[in-house]
Amino acid sequence: MSETRTRPKRATIFDVAAEAGVSRGTVSRVLNGEPYVSQSAREAIEAAIDKVGYVRNTAARNLATQTSGAVALIVHEPHAVFVEDPNIGAILLGTNTALSDADYQLVSLIIDSDRDTDRVVSYLGGGFVDGAIVVSAREDDPITAALERLHIPTVLVGRPETAPELPSVSIDNRTAARDITERLVSTGRRRIGMIAAALDRDSGRDRLAGFRDALGDAFDDALVVEVPLYSFHSGQEGMRQLLRRAPDLDGIFAASDAIAAGAVDVLKEAGKRIPNDVGVVGFDDSAWALRCQPALSTVRQPAGALGARAAELVLDEIRRGERQRGVVLLPTEVVWRDSA
Amino acid sequence: MSETRTRPKRATIFDVAAEAGVSRGTVSRVLNGEPYVSQSAREAIEAAIDKVGYVRNTAARNLATQTSGAVALIVHEPHAVFVEDPNIGAILLGTNTALSDADYQLVSLIIDSDRDTDRVVSYLGGGFVDGAIVVSAREDDPITAALERLHIPTVLVGRPETAPELPSVSIDNRTAARDITERLVSTGRRRIGMIAAALDRDSGRDRLAGFRDALGDAFDDALVVEVPLYSFHSGQEGMRQLLRRAPDLDGIFAASDAIAAGAVDVLKEAGKRIPNDVGVVGFDDSAWALRCQPALSTVRQPAGALGARAAELVLDEIRRGERQRGVVLLPTEVVWRDSA
Repeated sequence: MSETRTRPKRATIFDVAAEAGVSRGTVSRVLNGEPYVSQSAREAIEAAIDKVGYVRNTAARNLATQTSGAVALIVHEPHAVFVEDPNIGAILLGTNTALSDADYQLVSLIIDSDRDTDRVVSYLGGGFVDGAIVVSAREDDPITAALERLHIPTVLVGRPETAPELPSVSIDNRTAARDITERLVSTGRRRIGMIAAALDRDSGRDRLAGFRDALGDAFDDALVVEVPLYSFHSGQEGMRQLLRRAPDLDGIFAASDAIAAGAVDVLKEAGKRIPNDVGVVGFDDSAWALRCQPALSTVRQPAGALGARAAELVLDEIRRGERQRGVVLLPTEVVWRDSA
Repeated sequence: MSETRTRPKRATIFDVAAEAGVSRGTVSRVLNGEPYVSQSAREAIEAAIDKVGYVRNTAARNLATQTSGAVALIVHEPHAVFVEDPNIGAILLGTNTALSDADYQLVSLIIDSDRDTDRVVSYLGGGFVDGAIVVSAREDDPITAALERLHIPTVLVGRPETAPELPSVSIDNRTAARDITERLVSTGRRRIGMIAAALDRDSGRDRLAGFRDALGDAFDDALVVEVPLYSFHSGQEGMRQLLRRAPDLDGIFAASDAIAAGAVDVLKEAGKRIPNDVGVVGFDDSAWALRCQPALSTVRQPAGALGARAAELVLDEIRRGERQRGVVLLPTEVVWRDSA
């Protein structure tokens, strides 16, 4: 079903010069819009460009200003989360829309291995992007360090404690987690557990801290399990552990909607009715929340707006050299449905 | 919480030249590894590079060969599908791994508006990428046309009929759809409907054709509804329409797992038991299949392998100038679970 052929080479500036019968330098002057080229040479070169199908090389054209018109979105997530988490798609689309409005090209780069890290650092040093947005950076993230070293305008989505110099856009995870837990308490639940995740990130730690704030003296360390990822599978694992420890639980705060969906799955298998026997609340208000049966009570986080705001901040720095320091916090709200 | 400061400018070749006390041309010769530069000038330049923090500009360094070391993955999907469809994430990760092994950088570009289309075409003409992989191209896709005009090595995932010149990697959607429908028929179902989607693409049309093949004379046009997207919401809409037309249906072939999950949701609401009253089968074996209650019987499509194979083909063309023509088809299999 297939055959092989040799593809035509892309035309270069040398092809244009040969076709027009002028020097490469003259072609270059015309491409750069410089004066002192005769009208006849200019016309010959323009005809040659059309004939050989030469495409102006933006990367080359912008060498003097060192700009590319592109901004990187760097996503640093393990496989399972990348494939499952609707927030990442929403952040990506929010960023794309804001950059597109400003006529900047979004290029997304995935970090999935140490090899990826090294190569992305070298790509970033190559002048291909004017700015970067880093999603879910870990502490001591080598990409963030490289961006600072390269003086590439950078904005974080989320806020690792080790990069206080970089501006970031986030939500107040601690307050939001306290709010949803308090709402769960107000339904009369007395034995509330938490499936905590991603404690190597600010979001994970802050959601746990907010849970503890809400429970105060009633907080019981034994009712918290820790799982690695904000994923459905991690939710199933965490819920199985919690049920073994405390079969009499009547409430669960899951650190994300995907985790909550996994927890609901295990609870149903164990014969628990939701919300009658156990009230479950999540975090994100992602596509998972409405897919879950019953629909999840959760915290809405404005994923698209996080991406858009990060794009605006990075454009401010690219275009005006102004860096906004500190954290921009976007509002969240409790969305109460049927799972608690 | 925030303050503004002026960021340091990125060092340019001019800064290096000034620091080293040599001409820009001399710096350029050293950066390009050209001979005929004195040892002392070379040392002064290397010291200056360290001191001013100059980063070699790969885009510039590779002007002569017109290469960037990057390959674009262009995703052309509406919002809902992009956020929901786990296949896209899996294709992306498969592509990333294969390119990473060859030390190429994957850059993902999203098309979400006409403005995006125009800007991506101009970006592709800018010398930023050496090749491109296009996912879910529509017929008469302007991006695909631009890639051909620019002589950028391109591989499609899926196969639109209007770009027969471009190599593509796909599955045999028609045979796979026939196989899963025949399996559903073999469970004794007699009134089988289909929720067809994305009929502007080969995948959508071929899945409908395979369904018709399997039913033969029993095919009834009235039992097919068409929805726009491979999404959960489209599945709900399609199932509502089908139930109004034929409340006695006992089988459903949904054109994707997300659609099947939406259909299951509506069927349960209507009081139908699955699989007892209605058997439902999907397509993809994506993360949706196992989330669904009951777990979906479906066709496994090798999303990661599709991405990896497309990357290998584009690298062949970039590095050896050899274009594989025609379609590479990867195998699928029926995965039978509990929904039918």
